[in-house]
Amino acid sequence: MVIRYPNGQPYHIHSDKTGPKKQVSKKSLTHKNRGMRLEDEINQSIKYYRQTNQAILHKKPTPVQIVNVDYPKRSAAKITEAYFRRASTTDYNGVYKGYYIDFEAKETRNKTSFPLKNFHQHQIDHMKECVEHGGIVFVLLYFSRLQKHYYLAAKDLFIFWDNQFKESKKKSIPLSEIEKMGVEIHIEISPRLPFLPIIDKIIQNKD
Amino acid sequence: MVIRYPNGQPYHIHSDKTGPKKQVSKKSLTHKNRGMRLEDEINQSIKYYRQTNQAILHKKPTPVQIVNVDYPKRSAAKITEAYFRRASTTDYNGVYKGYYIDFEAKETRNKTSFPLKNFHQHQIDHMKECVEHGGIVFVLLYFSRLQKHYYLAAKDLFIFWDNQFKESKKKSIPLSEIEKMGVEIHIEISPRLPFLPIIDKIIQNKD
Repeated sequence: MVIRYPNGQPYHIHSDKTGPKKQVSKKSLTHKNRGMRLEDEINQSIKYYRQTNQAILHKKPTPVQIVNVDYPKRSAAKITEAYFRRASTTDYNGVYKGYYIDFEAKETRNKTSFPLKNFHQHQIDHMKECVEHGGIVFVLLYFSRLQKHYYLAAKDLFIFWDNQFKESKKKSIPLSEIEKMGVEIHIEISPRLPFLPIIDKIIQNKD
Repeated sequence: MVIRYPNGQPYHIHSDKTGPKKQVSKKSLTHKNRGMRLEDEINQSIKYYRQTNQAILHKKPTPVQIVNVDYPKRSAAKITEAYFRRASTTDYNGVYKGYYIDFEAKETRNKTSFPLKNFHQHQIDHMKECVEHGGIVFVLLYFSRLQKHYYLAAKDLFIFWDNQFKESKKKSIPLSEIEKMGVEIHIEISPRLPFLPIIDKIIQNKD
């Protein structure tokens, strides 16, 4: 098990100083190893919220088009040909305080804006439907090189999404706008991404 | 396209009576061809409810454990080894009038009771969590040889589920109990399984 600081940096147990100096491998310095992957952070967070009985949120399975399955005798069916399908909804949904919750998580390596190409029209359509039917819908945006996470309500995302086809033609959301309209989420240990307090405020305003 | 009566029986256009009598193939008499499969009936129903903007309900993708993927040049990634995983939740969820909806569909060939072995403990646990957090949770039960569909609230299913480990030890729910506690759903053309009116009554009693 890797022990980590709250900021995601692994905690190294220093060996005896008289021992040979360990060479730091190049791999451990790459971006991938700096912290958890966004998906893992979210999975850890929703698992924590389930285990502490605060919210019931799940990630949907990856949609796969199954073409061929072998049924060997005395062992489990084996899928031998399948392809990834594009999801027709968002990745996460569930229930919190009786409200339907629906969200998607995306990341960018950009430093000043979030490219809209991270979303697909049918995902936006699905989010619009869920908003219309009274769900609490949002996106979690991660700027990986800034190590900053934001909560952005779906209705705010829709403004930028719809505008790209109209007057503005802007294909991304400026970080400055996300900071104004959204809420920054600061990483913690458990849950890694504490986003329920933001939803609590939304529910307070709804009631 | 097969034209069907509202009860699911295919409508046969009778050919000229002077022509040769067509032999009815054995296949068309099997159970499989009598009507739509339960999964198709539900998919048709939730699609209809989405298209008429009444409720946003989706079936979750089949959970698959992907072991090996080939990435051929200039074509789509091909999954070459994968296995079916047991779902950790129910198959269907979504939002209706702001409420979180969660359900599972199961069928039996039994004529007098519904075997509890159609459900798994973790599915029951998931449904209990969703009920506790204010979701509207139920099962759609289909007696295929009787061609009868029932709506049963999850809280009623829990009674029978929990009792099998206690005094009663009964491993199935008698049809007579389902008829008392549940609601029969009569097949229509669109949607095939009109279950929203049942949920409307539950919402009326909630408010």
